[in-house]
Parts: sequence; C-alpha cells; structure tokens
Amino acid sequence: MNLEEFRAAGHAVIDFLADYHASLAQRPVMAQTRPGEVRAQLPETPPAQPEAFAGVLEDVERVVLPGLSLWQHPRFFGYFPSNADLGSVLGDFLSSGLGVLGLSWQSSPALTEVEEVVTDWMRQLVGLPDAFRGVIQDTASTSTLVALLCARERTTGYSGSHAGLQAEARPLVVYTSVYSHSSVQKAAVLAGFGNDNVRAIPTDEAFALRPDLLEAAMLSDLEAGRLPCAVVVSTGTTTTTALDPVAAVADLAERHGLWLHVDAAMAGTAMLLPECRWMWAGVERADSLVLNPHKWLGSVFDNSLYYVRDPEHLVRVMSTNPSYLQSAADHEVTNYRDWGIPLGRRFRALKLWSMLRTSGVEAIQARLRRDLDNAQWLAGQIKETADWQLLAPVPLQTLCVRYAPAGIEGDALDRLTQAWCARINDSGEAYLTPATLEGRWMVRVSIGALTTEREHVEQLWEMMRRHAAEAAHELKA
Amino acid sequence: MNLEEFRAAGHAVIDFLADYHASLAQRPVMAQTRPGEVRAQLPETPPAQPEAFAGVLEDVERVVLPGLSLWQHPRFFGYFPSNADLGSVLGDFLSSGLGVLGLSWQSSPALTEVEEVVTDWMRQLVGLPDAFRGVIQDTASTSTLVALLCARERTTGYSGSHAGLQAEARPLVVYTSVYSHSSVQKAAVLAGFGNDNVRAIPTDEAFALRPDLLEAAMLSDLEAGRLPCAVVVSTGTTTTTALDPVAAVADLAERHGLWLHVDAAMAGTAMLLPECRWMWAGVERADSLVLNPHKWLGSVFDNSLYYVRDPEHLVRVMSTNPSYLQSAADHEVTNYRDWGIPLGRRFRALKLWSMLRTSGVEAIQARLRRDLDNAQWLAGQIKETADWQLLAPVPLQTLCVRYAPAGIEGDALDRLTQAWCARINDSGEAYLTPATLEGRWMVRVSIGALTTEREHVEQLWEMMRRHAAEAAHELKA
Repeated sequence: MNLEEFRAAGHAVIDFLADYHASLAQRPVMAQTRPGEVRAQLPETPPAQPEAFAGVLEDVERVVLPGLSLWQHPRFFGYFPSNADLGSVLGDFLSSGLGVLGLSWQSSPALTEVEEVVTDWMRQLVGLPDAFRGVIQDTASTSTLVALLCARERTTGYSGSHAGLQAEARPLVVYTSVYSHSSVQKAAVLAGFGNDNVRAIPTDEAFALRPDLLEAAMLSDLEAGRLPCAVVVSTGTTTTTALDPVAAVADLAERHGLWLHVDAAMAGTAMLLPECRWMWAGVERADSLVLNPHKWLGSVFDNSLYYVRDPEHLVRVMSTNPSYLQSAADHEVTNYRDWGIPLGRRFRALKLWSMLRTSGVEAIQARLRRDLDNAQWLAGQIKETADWQLLAPVPLQTLCVRYAPAGIEGDALDRLTQAWCARINDSGEAYLTPATLEGRWMVRVSIGALTTEREHVEQLWEMMRRHAAEAAHELKA
Repeated sequence: MNLEEFRAAGHAVIDFLADYHASLAQRPVMAQTRPGEVRAQLPETPPAQPEAFAGVLEDVERVVLPGLSLWQHPRFFGYFPSNADLGSVLGDFLSSGLGVLGLSWQSSPALTEVEEVVTDWMRQLVGLPDAFRGVIQDTASTSTLVALLCARERTTGYSGSHAGLQAEARPLVVYTSVYSHSSVQKAAVLAGFGNDNVRAIPTDEAFALRPDLLEAAMLSDLEAGRLPCAVVVSTGTTTTTALDPVAAVADLAERHGLWLHVDAAMAGTAMLLPECRWMWAGVERADSLVLNPHKWLGSVFDNSLYYVRDPEHLVRVMSTNPSYLQSAADHEVTNYRDWGIPLGRRFRALKLWSMLRTSGVEAIQARLRRDLDNAQWLAGQIKETADWQLLAPVPLQTLCVRYAPAGIEGDALDRLTQAWCARINDSGEAYLTPATLEGRWMVRVSIGALTTEREHVEQLWEMMRRHAAEAAHELKA
C-alpha cells in the first residue's frame, strides 16, 4: 500500500470508527453469531491478487461487526470493563503507525523512556512508594507468571541459572485464595509448581482470604517438608471484587520468606481515588503487583502494568544478552526485554500517555466515582426489592446478584438464574456474565464502561426485573 | 475524548503518519539520543487537567521522533527487518478502534474465527500440512516458551496437573544449537529446566546444528540418567540465518521421543517461495513451529504465528475454565485462551488479514525475491572486493561481513569492525547490527525493509567501503 492509498484509506478508517462508536448504543451488545458463521463467510484460501482496502472495510462492516460482542457499549456489564478511551486509541494508532520496536533501549530509546515516565506517573497516581518500578506487559496472566517465576528463582537461589527446579529437593508451594483469578493457578502450573502444590485458601464471609488459614496451611507444609514460596492476594477478585487483607498476608510472607504478589488487575484503578486506598493497605510491602489500565481505567487493550520493588532481581531471572543486542549505552539505560518474557516490544506506553494527557487525572477520578455511585445505587435498589439478593459486599463497581422467589431453590434456582441472564444477553439489550459462587449460579453486573451513565444502569435494572419475572413464570409453567 | 474530537484528531494522526513515512528517508536511521534525554523532556508528574490531542502529537514530533531508531527506513539493515506494511497498520487501527477483547469465543466470535481463517491461509502459503493449526502470539520468545512448556508436560506425563516438575526424578534436557536465538535458553530457564540442562550443540562450517553431535549428546545424557525432552532447531538463525537440518533432527527426535520445535521466526517467511522450501525439509514432522509475520513478511508488530500438530495437547497444558468464562458454545468453538499464556487477547488477526488482502500474495512473493536478489548482489560485491570477507553462506537476505585489511588481526580487527559499524550508525545514513561469530566481531547486513531497493543497498555498500577505509586509517594513525 503506498502513501497516498494509506492517507485516503486511513481517513476512511477514522470515519468508519467514529460512525461505529456513534452507532454503538443501537447495536446488540452480545454477538448473535452461531459457531462457524463468521468463518463460513470468508474465503478458505488467501488472495493471489491485491484488492483495495475498501473491500476489507466492507467485510469488517458486513462480516466482522455482527460477530463482535461490544465491550464499549453503554450497556456492557459483562466480565470486567475493558475500556478503549479514544485518546488512548489514538496513542495506539501512533504506536502501530510509527512501526518501531523495542528490543533494547538502543533499538528505539523513546519507546523505553516514555514507558519509564508513564509507569512512574501511574505509580504516583495509585500512591505506591517510589521504590517501585514499572513495566508494561500484555496481560495480568503474564504479569502473574513473571511474579511466580521470580518467586521460584528467589526461593531456590536461582535454580534456573544452574540445575533447574528439579534440583530443589523440597516441593515449592504457592498460596492463594479459592477466589483468585484462574491465571494464578495457570501460572503456577506453567512455572512448574504443579497443581498439587497450589493451596486454595478458604475465604471469610466477604470472600476475602483468611490469613489464619493461610498461616495454618504454611505451617502444615513446612512440617511436611515442603517449602512455602509465594502468596498471591487479590485486590478485587474476579468473582466478587473481594479484597484480600494485604497487610496481614504481608506479615506472614515476611515471617516465612515468601514472595508476595498483589493481583490488583481490576481494582488497582480504584487507587486513583485516595478514599479507596484502604482497600490494599500494606501494598507497599508487596514484592510485585499487577494493575491493568486496559480494564476500568480506559487504556485500550493491551496494557498491563507490572510493578516490582527490586528490578535487579527481575532482571537476574529474565536477562539475556546476546552480542547482537548489546550497545554502548547498556550500563546507563533500562533494557525492558529483561523485565518480561518477550524480546520484541510494542510502543505500548503511547496509549496510556495519550489517555492520561487528553483526559486529565481529575476527569478520570470523577468518572470512577460516577461508576462507584452507580453501583451503590443499584445495590440499594436490589436490597430493597423483594426476592432479589445481593450476594457479596460491593466495595467497587461489580455486583453479584440473584433473583430467588419463594419456592425456587437448588438446581431450579440455578436454571432460573441462567435463564434470565441468557434472556438479557440474547436480547442484545445488555450483557451480563453468569458465574458460580459457593457452587451456585449467580449473575455479575460489572459497571464501568466509559459511556455507561445512570440511565443505562436504570434500564438494566428494569430489564433484570422483567426478564427474571418472565423466566420464573416460564419455569413454573 | 468525545467522538467529534476523535474524528478531527484521528484525521490529524493519519496525515501525521503519512507525512512521517514520506519523510523517513531524510531522517537519521539510528536515534542520535543520549540516555535520559527523552525522559528529561517530559513532565515528572501526571497532568491533573486535560489537554488537546494536538499537544500529544506535538510532543511526538518534537520529543519522540528524534528518539526513535527507524525500522521502516529504506536504509535500515539492522537486526532483522520488522516491517509495518501500511495495509497491516490500517488493520491494526481497526483492532484498536473496535476495542473488543478475546477471552473466549463468546466474548467476540469474529476475533477467533478471523484468526482461524488467517492462520490457515498462512499455513497454506508456507506449505505446511493441514494437520497443523495456528494461533497468533505476541513474539517468538513466547511461542518458544509455550513449546518448551508443552514438551515438559508431555515428557513428564502432565506433571503440571499433579505434583509439578520437581516430582520427575530424572533431569529433563533441552537441545539446541550454539547459534539458536537467546529466547531458547531463556525459555528453558523460565520453564524450569535450568541452564545446566540446556545443551548447546556445535555447528558445522555453515553454522548449522550437527545431528551427529546432537545424537551423541542425547546418548550421553541418557547414559547419565537424564531424560532428553525437547530439541529446538532454527530455520534461519539470528546470527547468520543458518539452516539447521530439520529432517535429520526429526529422525532423532522421533527415535528418542523428544518434542521438536522449529524456530522459523525469520525464515518462515521465505517459505512463501516454493523454491525456498528445501530449507526446512522435514518440517511436517515438527511438533510445533513459530513464524513471525511481523518480521520480513510485513505485518506490523506484534504478530507471531505458532503452529502445532496436536492442539489437544496444547489445550491440556494451557487450559483454564472458570465459571465466568464458560458458554454454551464451548464444545463447538476454539477458545484461544487455552492456546497460550494470556487470557485476554487483541484482535491481532485483522492486521495480517488486511495486509494479505491489500498486498496480494504474488506481490509479496515478488518483494521477497527482490530482497533475496539484493542480498546476492551485495554478496557478489563483497566476494570480489579485496580485504572484504563474507563469513557465512547467504541463503536468505542477511550477510555477515568483515573488513580485514592486511596487518590488522585479533583485537585490533575487532576494534576496526566495531569502529566502522559505529561510524555508519552514528552518521544516521544507515543502520547495521554488530554481532560476534566464533568469538570475533563482525557486522550483519539484514536486507528486507519494505522500501529498500537496489539503490539503497548500493548506497550502503559505498558507505561500508568508505567508513571501513577511514576507520582503518584512523586505527593505524
């Protein structure tokens, strides 16, 4: 594609995207697509001859858009928000359009230094001490894997540099709550700990990890000749946004020499509000933490911040230094390739930098407070409405709800819950995520899309009552 | 940022990028930046109030651009090419602008199905059997780590699901050539094998792995009670683009039950040319392979294809299935979260899809042949010029060269090599990567930026002779 074609097609893309965003609220939130339907509309073989970009754009409109679930829709209440602030989108355009690559500082110095600046801005914004240094990873899954790899290497005296994990006689153990994210267990498996050596610690009535049971598990492992290695706590679990007690766990981690990793992928954003910082009190004692600006905060995916208190340790685990990557500047710069798994790195800092500058911090704080207020409003409605249950505290913007009319219990209640949630999702009017809590289905309402105002939450609440009542009626019939 | 601001600023970004690309050939290729220089020009604290996007764009022009090494420059001969075809850039804009996220098929069906289509197009284009299925990862480092994790789990009967790597009594061993990419060693360390259990097998006169020495190493490990687990061969090593003998290694891998991973990150692209496929003869017997369209092929970073012959095995190692990610469609769709480390995934297929459609395969093939021809032309010049040495075969588009006038040897020759390379890089006229080969410095010339024509290679060759002669003169003085 030559430059004149790029200029013309690029302007068309901008208009297409602006029109798309303007039309979002009128589109179905959840894709109404059947498996294989998108694939069936595309050629099975690649094109020998070129076509104009207009053809691609036409297929995006005709084939791709109907096959998307719309995360930016004002009535998207699924999973957690994954916002794509338009200022960050433009920053990402610059990253793609400049086409530079970070392998080493030398391979594009600004890529590294803007990342240093913007990760430090975020550190200040969430109130972390200046001992913490940050790097942008793709996702929290990767950040948590990096944390457990660092933990493994610290505990084994850098086994990776020598004979590997197998040379350590005592099995290493990872601790986390039963409600931690699935990526914690996955990271432990990938890092070689094995499922049998992951302790899922039970939680209290607020679904937060119980430090007394954590300590009991550690002592039991020690007694059995195993070696406690790492503990992962969540500030905002995925199921309920429960808040594990960071300070109490930090006490135990220090006493027994464990690596403490804080998964604040979701709720780290709330720490831009000073009134929320009690939620992770003690975080300054963590060895590492992850916070995803690509969730509620609004930087377009992918943008996961990983902070460490001791970058030298991280580098010692992750470092590579082949001759073709060396430069004279190496001793006075940061080479982020040694801070994670990939060697090549996108200029991801641009999207976060552009978002913070074009939004301004005060407007972001106001938006987060709006979402917290909306969540409290809906929580209030649910509490005062017969047959509706709020199943967990609502410290943030996610609610766990169930409609439980008299006479419907157990498996029948599970069917009802899934039925009314599916009715809403299938209607295309709003999108919610069903999940299980203590073995029974419930529905998560996660507020926080950029365009979600009180009116959209009110519309959702009306839909919930209507579809739940209708589903209950059908179930009884 | 509201939609009208986005529309106006978006058009400005397109024009900015088009102008930037038009100006590339006049800009210095290597950033002339001192460590800390970019950082020092940016505020240390985040902005409380918003500013117009024009301010961001101004800083990109004023602060960021001078701090970039220009990978898209026609005289970029460093590392390997990391092209950003403008058709792929537009596809990436769509990915960012749509702001959707793949967690499961359900969370955006088209994201998964376009990826299935385009990875299969690429499979056909490089001539892999249809048993292979593909997924897009971020980089080859990640793909190779995934390969070694799969190898580890297959060899240990899925230790991760049980007691972990420590429960396997015999140390597992990974084999690769002394010239394999640094990511292989890093992946082995991260996967827990340990440096001591990575065998760097010596190479032949063409810097390709010697299967006889590979077998000897395996037998020696078996005899010592260790368990050969995986072998990583390269189709196009980073240092010299050497071609390890895939078929001969596949024989050994089959005989001894090892996982065979092919690192074709760079040279996989050449397999779009049928006349190049002899280079990886036997590849159909690999368990996995990685091929980076974000290198020579031209899809903007990041876009690394990972192919496996047995996706069920991959899924068994990587799978997670919490309640909040389950959907009714799960049994009939691909959930790519189980094909790699991250849970959340960008719509990366769009950039590759858009590039293949707007370029057409025949034009891509013609461009690759142009680059191979340019490399052969330069190789011919070097061979017939006194005091210049070509240090390795040139099967592809990368040359390893040295200027060795009579009377300069050993450390002095190393100093001369680094000096003339630095002179060229510091001039901003072209960009080359110095590297070591058999313990001595040489210079890699890697041809293949999209805009690099014969004239640019001719200009480079003139610069090389001039700067080398001047550096030699200075060294003698």
